[in-house]
Amino acid sequence: MSITISALKEAPGENRVALSPDVVRKLVKSDYQVLIEQGAGERAFYQDAVYTDAGAKVVDRASAVKQATIIATVDQPGDDVVDQLQAGQTLLGLLSPLTDLDFVKKLAAKKVNALAFELLPRTVSRAQTMDVLSSQASVAGYKAALLAADRFSRYLPMMITAAGTAKPTKVLVLGTGVAGLQAIGTAKRLGAMVSGYDIRPASRGEVESLGATFLTTSVSATGEGGYARALTPEETAQQQAELAEFIAQSDVVITTAQVPGRRPPLLVTQKSVDEAKAGKLFIDLAASELGGNVAGSKPSETVTTANDAQIVGAGDMASQLPASASDMYAKNVQSVITDITKDGELVFDVDDEVVGELLATYQGEIISSRERSAMDLP
Amino acid sequence: MSITISALKEAPGENRVALSPDVVRKLVKSDYQVLIEQGAGERAFYQDAVYTDAGAKVVDRASAVKQATIIATVDQPGDDVVDQLQAGQTLLGLLSPLTDLDFVKKLAAKKVNALAFELLPRTVSRAQTMDVLSSQASVAGYKAALLAADRFSRYLPMMITAAGTAKPTKVLVLGTGVAGLQAIGTAKRLGAMVSGYDIRPASRGEVESLGATFLTTSVSATGEGGYARALTPEETAQQQAELAEFIAQSDVVITTAQVPGRRPPLLVTQKSVDEAKAGKLFIDLAASELGGNVAGSKPSETVTTANDAQIVGAGDMASQLPASASDMYAKNVQSVITDITKDGELVFDVDDEVVGELLATYQGEIISSRERSAMDLP
Repeated sequence: MSITISALKEAPGENRVALSPDVVRKLVKSDYQVLIEQGAGERAFYQDAVYTDAGAKVVDRASAVKQATIIATVDQPGDDVVDQLQAGQTLLGLLSPLTDLDFVKKLAAKKVNALAFELLPRTVSRAQTMDVLSSQASVAGYKAALLAADRFSRYLPMMITAAGTAKPTKVLVLGTGVAGLQAIGTAKRLGAMVSGYDIRPASRGEVESLGATFLTTSVSATGEGGYARALTPEETAQQQAELAEFIAQSDVVITTAQVPGRRPPLLVTQKSVDEAKAGKLFIDLAASELGGNVAGSKPSETVTTANDAQIVGAGDMASQLPASASDMYAKNVQSVITDITKDGELVFDVDDEVVGELLATYQGEIISSRERSAMDLP
Repeated sequence: MSITISALKEAPGENRVALSPDVVRKLVKSDYQVLIEQGAGERAFYQDAVYTDAGAKVVDRASAVKQATIIATVDQPGDDVVDQLQAGQTLLGLLSPLTDLDFVKKLAAKKVNALAFELLPRTVSRAQTMDVLSSQASVAGYKAALLAADRFSRYLPMMITAAGTAKPTKVLVLGTGVAGLQAIGTAKRLGAMVSGYDIRPASRGEVESLGATFLTTSVSATGEGGYARALTPEETAQQQAELAEFIAQSDVVITTAQVPGRRPPLLVTQKSVDEAKAGKLFIDLAASELGGNVAGSKPSETVTTANDAQIVGAGDMASQLPASASDMYAKNVQSVITDITKDGELVFDVDDEVVGELLATYQGEIISSRERSAMDLP
């Protein structure tokens, strides 16, 4: 087979790597050639020697790019890589195709094919094993609950000791998608008293099955693709007002409401933040350059309010559990690669419901319907 | 009643405070006067206003010292406080009476009475509610497991997802006293595969009741007061060699073996550290200026080995869960104070099996038998 897959070293601050030693071993066994850029797995504690043992060749960055049929990355690669790409090569990763249209246009102009995980149709069952957003959200939710436990000044569980009894901590999780459910499950494991809120009433069963209390407001909004629809300004105000009461009664608030390519909804208002007591902890998984779920949250920073509450901007949680996150990510990469390989060659079926959506661009054309709509193409 | 209790602001780096608002409320109700130094509770998220609400008077440092019958502290107070103390005043806290003999001598010379929690006889049941070493070890063990979960690069629990299955992390806890048992319990809650080792075979039941595997070596040593006795050099070598195998098979190693006033035993040798794989994590609760349980550990620092394993010096874990730790500590303080109050006055019964041991010095004399023995007094 003549397919060569390369994984590159990510930018500083990103600890994940697109291929794990375990996946490399499976790919090599299936006759793919695998190249790993020197040091690519270091921050996930996967050393070069482990990749070599698994059957990969460890090479410098330029060779990894030049010789690749498919380059697998976690985040968008830098200009040094893009400039070097040749027509017919394929890029696979979290490429921000809906928020960075110019990047996709640049790849299209170079006739580089781009498979962007953000474009995966999430309701098709065959696509589940390729669902990076889901696998990484699961890591992020777990990690968010741990971060909360580590940063909070009190025990999460009830503790009955000779020196008295400590009450369990009240944890509120806003948004009960994959990340929220995993945060709920982990906080429950730790013995906290957990509630989960979602604007989609259908979440009740999942939340309750984890032993948590389901909270809901009078605003309900089920949208497409499993996401909530956007709210009207009146609905938003109503939701925020009702949520404020739940927030006031909680010790720890973990927020997880994200909408791909759009500003995250503001769930915790400035008023709720200002009224938060000393020691109250907000963990905002949606904290990003576009804003977050909590007023005043900043990506990768902890903000302390005048009243000594803390807001932790936690948009990079998956990267903080780098080995497990990379393992899951690599499995998703492997699934995509296997799916588009036919008789030892890559085959891009632009009419396929999964591949045709995952493909931001192919042979110079914009393929994915969501990408086309983002670019206002017919 | 004419008893005034003061709590001071601790040195930077110590987040705990000796009195909690809850305990202040109870003391005030029992007619004690309580003074809190401005900002004393800040780092435990207890603001001055909360103490005022509980019935304390918030005052400056000099007034808190000058007007106190008893000064309750967490750690040894600084010279500024000691110099100001007057004969007949009482100091209560973790005063390092076995490792800093000069400090006790200084207090004795000033005829300041000193109740040092380290000297509490731990096997007397009446003393259990005063047992600061136990209440803080419990916090430390919980926090150590959380720290391990937060620093480790993988999921602790087994995870079965669409992107594959993650194996549970193997956590080994060395030393299964209060801290070790709490670390085991917390790691189990999080879904890790946990083993506990102790040199005291009697620990088996406690470890197994938490659902963990009990490991033991051919060296066994039950000593006095619930602690293990010191080992001979041959026993130490034998223990280290047998432990090395358990350590090699674990992903995370949490060490908790401490002996008050003595250098902690070395459980993880330099060889085990050197052989540790990339990503392996050591959390050393015994890390101190005297040394730790893990070769090369440094207090409050993370050391990365040549092979990319990590050793976290975690001697200050209780201070990292400041609100809960202070709550427990304050309850212990309250117990001591209640115990030595008779008809509205402090009464120090030097012949009492608890108070007579807790008293490092009283009216210029060294009282505690352990303190006398440390000073080579008859």
